[in-house]
Amino acid sequence: VGSSMAEYNTNLRLKLPITCIVMEVIVIILFAVFVRYDTDTDARKWHKEKSHDNKSNYENDFYFRYPSFQDVHVMIFIGFGFLMTFLQRYGFSSVGFNFLIAAFSLQWATLMQGFFHGMHNGKIEIGVESMINADFCTGAVLISFGAVLGKTSPVQLLIMAVIEVTLFAINEFLVLSVLNAKDAGGSMTIHIFGAYFGLGVTRVLYRPNLDKSQHKNCSVYHSDLFAMIGTIYLWMFWPSFNSAITAEGDDQHRTAMNTYYSLAACTLATFAISAVVNHEGKLDMVHIQNAALAGGVAMGTAGEMMLTPVGSMVVGFLAGIISTLGFKYLTPILEEKFHVQDTCGVHNLHGMPGVLGATVGTITASLASAEVYGEGMKDVFPDIYEGKTTPFKQAMWQGLSMGVTMGIASIGGILTGLLLKVPIYATPPDTMCFEDNIYWEVCLCHSFCLTLASNV
Amino acid sequence: VGSSMAEYNTNLRLKLPITCIVMEVIVIILFAVFVRYDTDTDARKWHKEKSHDNKSNYENDFYFRYPSFQDVHVMIFIGFGFLMTFLQRYGFSSVGFNFLIAAFSLQWATLMQGFFHGMHNGKIEIGVESMINADFCTGAVLISFGAVLGKTSPVQLLIMAVIEVTLFAINEFLVLSVLNAKDAGGSMTIHIFGAYFGLGVTRVLYRPNLDKSQHKNCSVYHSDLFAMIGTIYLWMFWPSFNSAITAEGDDQHRTAMNTYYSLAACTLATFAISAVVNHEGKLDMVHIQNAALAGGVAMGTAGEMMLTPVGSMVVGFLAGIISTLGFKYLTPILEEKFHVQDTCGVHNLHGMPGVLGATVGTITASLASAEVYGEGMKDVFPDIYEGKTTPFKQAMWQGLSMGVTMGIASIGGILTGLLLKVPIYATPPDTMCFEDNIYWEVCLCHSFCLTLASNV
Amino acid sequence: VGSSMAEYNTNLRLKLPITCIVMEVIVIILFAVFVRYDTDTDARKWHKEKSHDNKSNYENDFYFRYPSFQDVHVMIFIGFGFLMTFLQRYGFSSVGFNFLIAAFSLQWATLMQGFFHGMHNGKIEIGVESMINADFCTGAVLISFGAVLGKTSPVQLLIMAVIEVTLFAINEFLVLSVLNAKDAGGSMTIHIFGAYFGLGVTRVLYRPNLDKSQHKNCSVYHSDLFAMIGTIYLWMFWPSFNSAITAEGDDQHRTAMNTYYSLAACTLATFAISAVVNHEGKLDMVHIQNAALAGGVAMGTAGEMMLTPVGSMVVGFLAGIISTLGFKYLTPILEEKFHVQDTCGVHNLHGMPGVLGATVGTITASLASAEVYGEGMKDVFPDIYEGKTTPFKQAMWQGLSMGVTMGIASIGGILTGLLLKVPIYATPPDTMCFEDNIYWEVCLCHSFCLTLASNV
Repeated sequence: VGSSMAEYNTNLRLKLPITCIVMEVIVIILFAVFVRYDTDTDARKWHKEKSHDNKSNYENDFYFRYPSFQDVHVMIFIGFGFLMTFLQRYGFSSVGFNFLIAAFSLQWATLMQGFFHGMHNGKIEIGVESMINADFCTGAVLISFGAVLGKTSPVQLLIMAVIEVTLFAINEFLVLSVLNAKDAGGSMTIHIFGAYFGLGVTRVLYRPNLDKSQHKNCSVYHSDLFAMIGTIYLWMFWPSFNSAITAEGDDQHRTAMNTYYSLAACTLATFAISAVVNHEGKLDMVHIQNAALAGGVAMGTAGEMMLTPVGSMVVGFLAGIISTLGFKYLTPILEEKFHVQDTCGVHNLHGMPGVLGATVGTITASLASAEVYGEGMKDVFPDIYEGKTTPFKQAMWQGLSMGVTMGIASIGGILTGLLLKVPIYATPPDTMCFEDNIYWEVCLCHSFCLTLASNV
Repeated sequence: VGSSMAEYNTNLRLKLPITCIVMEVIVIILFAVFVRYDTDTDARKWHKEKSHDNKSNYENDFYFRYPSFQDVHVMIFIGFGFLMTFLQRYGFSSVGFNFLIAAFSLQWATLMQGFFHGMHNGKIEIGVESMINADFCTGAVLISFGAVLGKTSPVQLLIMAVIEVTLFAINEFLVLSVLNAKDAGGSMTIHIFGAYFGLGVTRVLYRPNLDKSQHKNCSVYHSDLFAMIGTIYLWMFWPSFNSAITAEGDDQHRTAMNTYYSLAACTLATFAISAVVNHEGKLDMVHIQNAALAGGVAMGTAGEMMLTPVGSMVVGFLAGIISTLGFKYLTPILEEKFHVQDTCGVHNLHGMPGVLGATVGTITASLASAEVYGEGMKDVFPDIYEGKTTPFKQAMWQGLSMGVTMGIASIGGILTGLLLKVPIYATPPDTMCFEDNIYWEVCLCHSFCLTLASNV
Repeated sequence: VGSSMAEYNTNLRLKLPITCIVMEVIVIILFAVFVRYDTDTDARKWHKEKSHDNKSNYENDFYFRYPSFQDVHVMIFIGFGFLMTFLQRYGFSSVGFNFLIAAFSLQWATLMQGFFHGMHNGKIEIGVESMINADFCTGAVLISFGAVLGKTSPVQLLIMAVIEVTLFAINEFLVLSVLNAKDAGGSMTIHIFGAYFGLGVTRVLYRPNLDKSQHKNCSVYHSDLFAMIGTIYLWMFWPSFNSAITAEGDDQHRTAMNTYYSLAACTLATFAISAVVNHEGKLDMVHIQNAALAGGVAMGTAGEMMLTPVGSMVVGFLAGIISTLGFKYLTPILEEKFHVQDTCGVHNLHGMPGVLGATVGTITASLASAEVYGEGMKDVFPDIYEGKTTPFKQAMWQGLSMGVTMGIASIGGILTGLLLKVPIYATPPDTMCFEDNIYWEVCLCHSFCLTLASNV
């Protein structure tokens, strides 16, 4: 081990600080030049608008969106962070690197999303909605992190984040502003993008000898309970995630409720399929931790539409089935035949349910009618409302957006993987994957267990 | 063990999937036939009402109740789920079965509550308030789950949920719509109902040889810390629970504040009594995890009334004392003399504090006066405001509601217990209670502890 | 051990119950005499104001502040509670005593803050804003708890809380009402106060032989993961903390956003410095758990000002650097040279970043101009807006407030420490510090680890 570690040089002492500080300094300079308060966060501008438009403080966007923002924030930092603690010896890295790359990505996303689709008079104006969008973009990076979990250094992850956030913003611009597709909860822009980007990276970083640390790629009793904290928070707050940036009023309300019922139905499907595919009829924690969430992913596009509660349940139910079957049957094939080592199974939780969600969005858009939406059409499908497009054409753009997203994500992931293969980023050797000890001070000597064991 | 397991057949491979899928398909069909968006979630209807009544988006019910809903949601899935992880070998089942039966119950509750007291033109119209009510009903099922924890299969739990949710909706209809009692936080409809239903079930399912797995019915250091996550979330968000469906404005505000002070006083009582009843003067985690919450239960009825902050504190203080003494002295008696094996002590946390809360509600209602409530009487006691009843009569209905609830819950629980005794539901043998291993894939071989221990 | 424990008498059987019950009874009597619902929580008064001023329910303060309150509440009970579970054998006490003293402090703070700066016609009128203020004051007590963690009994902690809350309210009155300084997020009143008070106490309680239990003053793998739950919740909800009592509208919005970016930049600084100061280039959990939060502390004063997003990032970045360097180099010096045993390093997380925050607030105040703030000056610096003071003078008062706070806190802490030295409070002996077993029933016999170990 000693020699391979020396050869690999996983010492972070210079590499990580330099990467962090250079990136943060660049971010600070760009913020200084480009980023300003928007009307709802600026003291002068808000008070001017209030008196000019006879507005009240409760009309500040903060009160419409901040509670949803905080729920999304919990999903990003607790949800994703703890979901990945299922590995027995990788809890510090799961939560810690999640924390690091999320804290970076949300800053970088503010800039990139601003550059590509948020400039006003040469400045990026920010408020709670841009904070939610920054967290959303961060979510895509964390999905990709799930695919490469345990096999990459924090330096590699930060570099991945720089590229992925940039491509995310470009793709988001194409999907939402050029193709005019709807995707408020990000079935396409977040889940498909994050999953296929991550799969591209992990494919290029394929390690044929990963079995050398395969005994660590396994959960332990309490690590699975920590992971359930992540799962349950993601599950509970997904209604807030999908509704966070939909239009105010009925749209936020409806999106949250659709997602709530979709997830409930998904959970029953997950437990059912998990038991039926196990030859002893036992439930598998991996399925419960992940596939039960697919109902949220699958509502990312159609959640704001008039899908009806029962429509949402059917979608969630299908998502749970597809996702659980993916964990059981598709993941081993991807690894053995296609050399895609997907640590957290993001293809099952984000990839396939994302495709399902995009498809449901396409179908639901094609069925949009003035009879069902009334004046609410203005919020959900403004182009149809204004007569600029038809439901059929809208559906075409929805479908095309899914394809564009998969293409940009996959190619971007593969190119990023090639860049990350350069052996200068303190990447772990095959024998030390899924192991906190190479990047963290881990105090073993005083461990509770050891103390007890030695007293026996 | 092998033979008894074979005899008992705890294999879930067919039983659980069939139960889940049949139930979910029934739910989906009933949703398709009966469930529709309400005015605040429907695109056409909301926009019509907005322009007709000159409303604004911030008047959508979403902004009054969704933050409270999310707090309640956290209590149901994290609060109840992790509270029950105190058992050393039952964490997967505690969180996992809690997740499963809650996800089912909230769907079934939407239907049952709709059928019994929410039909509009033959349809059930839903929005955030019905989501809160569905979560509330789910809370009652989870309280009953606490009584039978460790001794029932997920199939039994799902069947229990079907019956309990149905009876809950009937009892809720009787209490709130026939007897016109007030019970916004559910001291009666949720806590008394859930506790006595669960006690009825566990009485019928009495296992004389449960001591065979009694060594597993015990906490371990880290399992108690996981349980504290559940406790603290329940404690923090109980103000949101009690205020979630009270009237808008001062009512939500006052209910939350009353509950906040009640819980604070309850916590001091719990620590005091926990130390005094221990002969070494040590604190007991079981008391802290449970009895400190009794102050929330006891404010379920009177929380919205003009109980005053000091009144709330006195109620919370009493609740903490009663609950801690119950854990110490009553639980052993219930088991030994009355053959009621109450795993989580729900009688101490929900049963007795629920009775206290209902009693406080009765007294407080009898003292309602126009001088104290002013025009606010309209929201808290509409019947008194409209002269349809007197404070004394209102108090009578409150007291009667408690009795009705206890009756329906106890009898319903006993009958449900008899149904669950039929040996076809994959119930665990006496030797395998409180044990995840029979229903879950548990990887012991690679456990961190074992690895360390074998290296000593 | 037996003899020293007898000598020390850590038995809580009488001491804790008497302390809790006497305190709670005093609180209840004072609440009965002095505390009343305010206009927004009182049924009669709110309905009167509504009809008189033509207000709507959504203008009730509940809807502006309750979501922020709940976030603050989570920080107090989960954030602080779990942050301190990093010790391997002190998890029950960390979460449990945090729970106890917080539940007491919020009641006592309601009274003390009311007496010193909230009396209306001889009564203390309360609502959601006073609940937030009570939680804030509780936060200061919990910071001081961090300094003495593991070395004090719950009786000592409760007595400390009585004194600290009282002094907190006096200092808060001086800073906010006499000196008219701004400190919405409490860089001075909460963080500097809590830190220097705690350092004063722990200095007086210096234990030269603490090394006898030093092997317990150490984390273990899973205890560090529990601590990360506390860290992440504090980190996520700090924007709500700093904005909870700022003015409605742009002020709450801007404060939350400034804090969000400050924390993100702080996290990158923390990872960078943590790796660079470790001779193996490994990250240290202590730094990540604590220093990454310094960006929130440092925004407590200037967060509501027009600091700009980039200004916030620079402040957060500096805070992360200072705090991490403090943990590495200053803490050992404080202990060895100055005999200050600061268990959680509150000087690094709250003391120094608090001073930074107060300084940034002073500078930012001095730069306040009508051009930047417009009519919003009324909310942020009402005295400047009304011409009662100048930006330069405001800055002087800000700076003076920092000095006053440090003085009152340090002297108060030292005097409290002297009182707590009296050997009647069940304080632990040197050999039993950082050990749950003396105050809690800890079941070791059935522990999972032992069972496994004995099976090897």
